[in-house]
Amino acid sequence: MNSPDFSTFTCPVGLSDEPVILLGHGGGGKMTQRLLDKIFMPAFSNPLSADRHDCAELRIGKTRSAFTTDSFVVRPIFFPGGDIGKLAVYGTANDLAMRGARPRFLSAGFIIEEGFAFDTLTKIVSSMAEALQQTDMQLVTGDTKVVEKGKGDGIFINTSGIGIIEHDLVISPTQVRSGDIVILSGDIGRHGIAVLAMREGLEFSVPIVSDCAPLFAPIQKLIAEGIEVHCLRDLTRGGLAAALVEIAQSSRSTMEITESVIPVEESVKGACEILGLDPMHIANEGRFIAFVPENQCDRALAILAHTTSGVEPKIIGKVTGNADPMVTLTTQIGTKRIMDLPSGELLPRIC
Amino acid sequence: MNSPDFSTFTCPVGLSDEPVILLGHGGGGKMTQRLLDKIFMPAFSNPLSADRHDCAELRIGKTRSAFTTDSFVVRPIFFPGGDIGKLAVYGTANDLAMRGARPRFLSAGFIIEEGFAFDTLTKIVSSMAEALQQTDMQLVTGDTKVVEKGKGDGIFINTSGIGIIEHDLVISPTQVRSGDIVILSGDIGRHGIAVLAMREGLEFSVPIVSDCAPLFAPIQKLIAEGIEVHCLRDLTRGGLAAALVEIAQSSRSTMEITESVIPVEESVKGACEILGLDPMHIANEGRFIAFVPENQCDRALAILAHTTSGVEPKIIGKVTGNADPMVTLTTQIGTKRIMDLPSGELLPRIC
Repeated sequence: MNSPDFSTFTCPVGLSDEPVILLGHGGGGKMTQRLLDKIFMPAFSNPLSADRHDCAELRIGKTRSAFTTDSFVVRPIFFPGGDIGKLAVYGTANDLAMRGARPRFLSAGFIIEEGFAFDTLTKIVSSMAEALQQTDMQLVTGDTKVVEKGKGDGIFINTSGIGIIEHDLVISPTQVRSGDIVILSGDIGRHGIAVLAMREGLEFSVPIVSDCAPLFAPIQKLIAEGIEVHCLRDLTRGGLAAALVEIAQSSRSTMEITESVIPVEESVKGACEILGLDPMHIANEGRFIAFVPENQCDRALAILAHTTSGVEPKIIGKVTGNADPMVTLTTQIGTKRIMDLPSGELLPRIC
Repeated sequence: MNSPDFSTFTCPVGLSDEPVILLGHGGGGKMTQRLLDKIFMPAFSNPLSADRHDCAELRIGKTRSAFTTDSFVVRPIFFPGGDIGKLAVYGTANDLAMRGARPRFLSAGFIIEEGFAFDTLTKIVSSMAEALQQTDMQLVTGDTKVVEKGKGDGIFINTSGIGIIEHDLVISPTQVRSGDIVILSGDIGRHGIAVLAMREGLEFSVPIVSDCAPLFAPIQKLIAEGIEVHCLRDLTRGGLAAALVEIAQSSRSTMEITESVIPVEESVKGACEILGLDPMHIANEGRFIAFVPENQCDRALAILAHTTSGVEPKIIGKVTGNADPMVTLTTQIGTKRIMDLPSGELLPRIC
């Protein structure tokens, strides 16, 4: 008997011909990608959506602008370090920042379930107002729909944002070059685990707090200091793993990443071990990776050390080629493995 | 005994101190206005949202732009004359058109319930693609979230849109002048009744079809032909009544409207009589009112007769003063009454 060909082995989740939407289709992994490929891209594909960035770059008049949308369905609505309102503002502001755009204008669409408490709505709205101030954005247009009890889940919020690109860089997977250094802006795994722990009533000796934070300030500083940023990505659904694999795919790059240098809080590490989760797959709401030229990476690191809060940024890897889209991870124990998108939904409703 | 002071009489619905969200808060009438006044405006008020138009006017660089958002929760998803996808594209395109902006870029955020059929999603997405072509818009950014079975209702779609204002007019309630003529672009009441009939299984001898249609073409024509359009409003939630009363309030105008000239299809009239509804309160998705100077109104009418489909546009009234915000309706039988916003939710989930 020949030895099995492992390259043909794949996880069955998400590879069947699903006739219906499953939770995994919203997970930011392989199933989400399939849904995009199968249904959305054939209908909507156009030059502006082709690079599959979360955020589109547009010309409005002569102004380079960015436009993005996100719906927020997180449960619970309030969690350590944030709430659905704060998340809805920072999430969209951060998608704009990942194009190097200054977040400017926000829209908010509320879908509220009949019976939702005014007090809770007021708290969420106040939290959004504070986050708007933090990001220096204006909420300029909104909409509220109410659905019958049992036809929603308390509150869903969609935010769309417009940002302005005030520099000449093109920040996109298309700009990733062989030799680029991958910088991670801080520790990973906190947001997803904080939300999950709250929802499932898990208690840890050190409480885990979401990293939910606005990200334009450090990006702006990098650009202002002349760092030639090639690509940026925040590490939301699908976590660091999805961000790296998607950029490798879009840019057809080979990357080598070293697991041991990736900062993960001890409490997050512990929670992941107990729950059988990989911190690389867990969503963050205040962390990003930046691809920068090797000769500028020390300077970039120094800038980020002063502008991102708390945990130090780290060099986690390098782009080694532009032929095969592949991310190789050198694990803690020194072995190498190929990183892949998470298959389905690990942690539903974390954003 | 003194005679009662009717000016202090108000409908109790929506005037109690509601501790929770009710269906009526999403109806586009008084309760929606209260929700805005009580919770959203105090937190989010800024110069760009102050005129309470569905659509904000912004400067992006030097370009006058428009930005708007809407979530669509219509039930059933497919109805005579349209579906949630078509509605989601035309609805947002029309809000841009009501600022006189050319619809350009669209975002789409999908919140899908676990178990939703791929086939149905594909149909909706195809319908959106066709509507995008009709409006000459590009869908440039999107997002998909999945919620557990029982935590949503099939599908909700948020669309946000960016439009470009290519002329020098300011189209806003602030521009309404005493002497302006109010033109209605066609018949009213079809969309709301079509959706309601489908949902409730009501059958009429002549089937009622939604008026769902894109509205930029006639607006563009008016402007291109030199009509000094002062204000525009599409007649969605709350219908013609809400549109007139809101503009009267924002512009502090007195208006006189003649009911007998307002076109209502016989089948819609019949359905409204049976159901005890006022066609003036029923939502439309392809009708608007335009405020134009009296000396240009014949020309405006002629232009609209050629660009809006089917039913002829009509002059339905006039702005008679700028002191008291009030809309007076001369009824079919010749009496006068003051028009008011609908109190609560007449027809839930019609958009």
